[in-house]
Amino acid sequence: MDEFGLIQQYFKRQNIPNSKVILGVGDDAAILKVSEGQSLVACVDTMVSGVHFHPDVSPSSLGYKLAMVNLSDIAAMGATPVWATLCLTLPGIDEAWLESFSNGLFEALDKCNVQLVGGDTTKGPMTLSLQLGGEVVHDKALARHGATVGDDVWVSGSLGGAAYALDLLAKSTSIDTLQSGSRLRLERPEARVELGLALQGLASACIDVSDGLLADAGHLCASSKVAVDFELSALPLHPSLSELNSPDMALPYALAGGDDYELLFTAGSAQCGKIAELSGPLGIELTKIGSVLNGGVIRCLYNGADVSADHQHLRGFNHFSPH
Amino acid sequence: MDEFGLIQQYFKRQNIPNSKVILGVGDDAAILKVSEGQSLVACVDTMVSGVHFHPDVSPSSLGYKLAMVNLSDIAAMGATPVWATLCLTLPGIDEAWLESFSNGLFEALDKCNVQLVGGDTTKGPMTLSLQLGGEVVHDKALARHGATVGDDVWVSGSLGGAAYALDLLAKSTSIDTLQSGSRLRLERPEARVELGLALQGLASACIDVSDGLLADAGHLCASSKVAVDFELSALPLHPSLSELNSPDMALPYALAGGDDYELLFTAGSAQCGKIAELSGPLGIELTKIGSVLNGGVIRCLYNGADVSADHQHLRGFNHFSPH
Repeated sequence: MDEFGLIQQYFKRQNIPNSKVILGVGDDAAILKVSEGQSLVACVDTMVSGVHFHPDVSPSSLGYKLAMVNLSDIAAMGATPVWATLCLTLPGIDEAWLESFSNGLFEALDKCNVQLVGGDTTKGPMTLSLQLGGEVVHDKALARHGATVGDDVWVSGSLGGAAYALDLLAKSTSIDTLQSGSRLRLERPEARVELGLALQGLASACIDVSDGLLADAGHLCASSKVAVDFELSALPLHPSLSELNSPDMALPYALAGGDDYELLFTAGSAQCGKIAELSGPLGIELTKIGSVLNGGVIRCLYNGADVSADHQHLRGFNHFSPH
Repeated sequence: MDEFGLIQQYFKRQNIPNSKVILGVGDDAAILKVSEGQSLVACVDTMVSGVHFHPDVSPSSLGYKLAMVNLSDIAAMGATPVWATLCLTLPGIDEAWLESFSNGLFEALDKCNVQLVGGDTTKGPMTLSLQLGGEVVHDKALARHGATVGDDVWVSGSLGGAAYALDLLAKSTSIDTLQSGSRLRLERPEARVELGLALQGLASACIDVSDGLLADAGHLCASSKVAVDFELSALPLHPSLSELNSPDMALPYALAGGDDYELLFTAGSAQCGKIAELSGPLGIELTKIGSVLNGGVIRCLYNGADVSADHQHLRGFNHFSPH
């Protein structure tokens, strides 16, 4: 099997009738429609073997997660994902791997009606990169820069589950004996696409929690030129963290863990009721965890007492970080 | 320096006032305008160290070529490039490398008024991936599937120069002593963006010559369900090939070399005059090198005699090809 056979067999089998795709896989570039009154939203994420995933993780989970990680960025903009392109760098052709990987990728893309429209296949150390394009009504995107003093800070779902699972694996727990809830958080995150769309007109700023709550809150604060106070006792900890004996042991996973792919967003207090009402229909927990203040510092409170000093070291994941 | 410092210092310094970019580097995704009446054109190309480039090639040339290779795909669609996202996987931070690489990248992007609007930076074996977005008037894109029997086959510029340079390097010629013309063809190809735009309404099908003339003609023929006869004596060979003693030695570089980034296109014979007239103003040689026929076979003629059997093995570059 060569490069063209590989594309034909594994990456041209998706059959979504997507009216936005004028020309898909197989030309120099894809041609896509962007609806009138909509802006294009574009993002990209790369996963490297040995860095973002263990070399023996299931290829299906890998494909699923690659798609969801990108879909999460589109969700954080309040946009509708539409199309994807894939850059696949592989050491060689392993048909069982390709079958499983493409199954997982398409399972995730199909959930959101996203069509794979092109890409590039090259030989080299395994590196997987997906680019997503979506649409959002003009001026309705959820950027990071709109938070204002007095807004509430919210987070979707729960925090810390993926990081806790990763930590257990590092301590030689086998992936098969990992508690299923935390394993799913690590391997098969769910992008909050519907929530992002529902937050249009309600949220003032939004970011997805991929680097860790404190790190991503830092990005949002820097863009919005504001500060945030978090009330740590309110954080929605992932259920798997309950087996830890104390908040002191559980909180670092929720604050710095990363890989959660939940939405962290701000909204005026007048929106509180409307936001709470979204939770039921979407089936997603939504928790108020803090408030927006003046200044540029993120403070951690526990039952109102400032415990920031205890958590200063939890800066979140950063490639090329000196430590 | 960490990931965020790297992006800030090397990849946020471009300052094109591009009215299509609503939100660039620094959010979960970029937000872009697509003009009314235009379709979006999207493509992506990856370059892997040791596969697509020698590890000690100049980083500036690498950045330049990464951009041009992608711009060539946009050119082959007859589209106007607008924005780019970059996935940079690097083994570590080398500031001199980043300075030089980003200089070369921006030199090429600036030539075409393309703005870098986002990307992803990860640690791992060096893999460079650029995604480009462009615009084309609805129904005016140059796809591969429009060639019809009786059309002429054209190619821009010259063929074989990059492959010949690569071959000399493999035979231990130092890159500094390489003839400057062929070195430029290898390291700093020029995407034919203006030509692609000028061919709207004239060309019936178009592809860029990246895998080699025969391989890319094969893709065009397969999409258009036609055959092509090439007249090899008409091929515009790169001047550096003149130091070879015979056409038999020079032709393989032109037929199978790849990395030429010229446009191979078809057009009705009624367009011959108009196409020839584009050459002067654009400063690009345009040569009629064959004709479109029925069937699915590519034939090579030399002064009218069928010499296909001599060139059957020149199938062009193919990742994961069994030989």
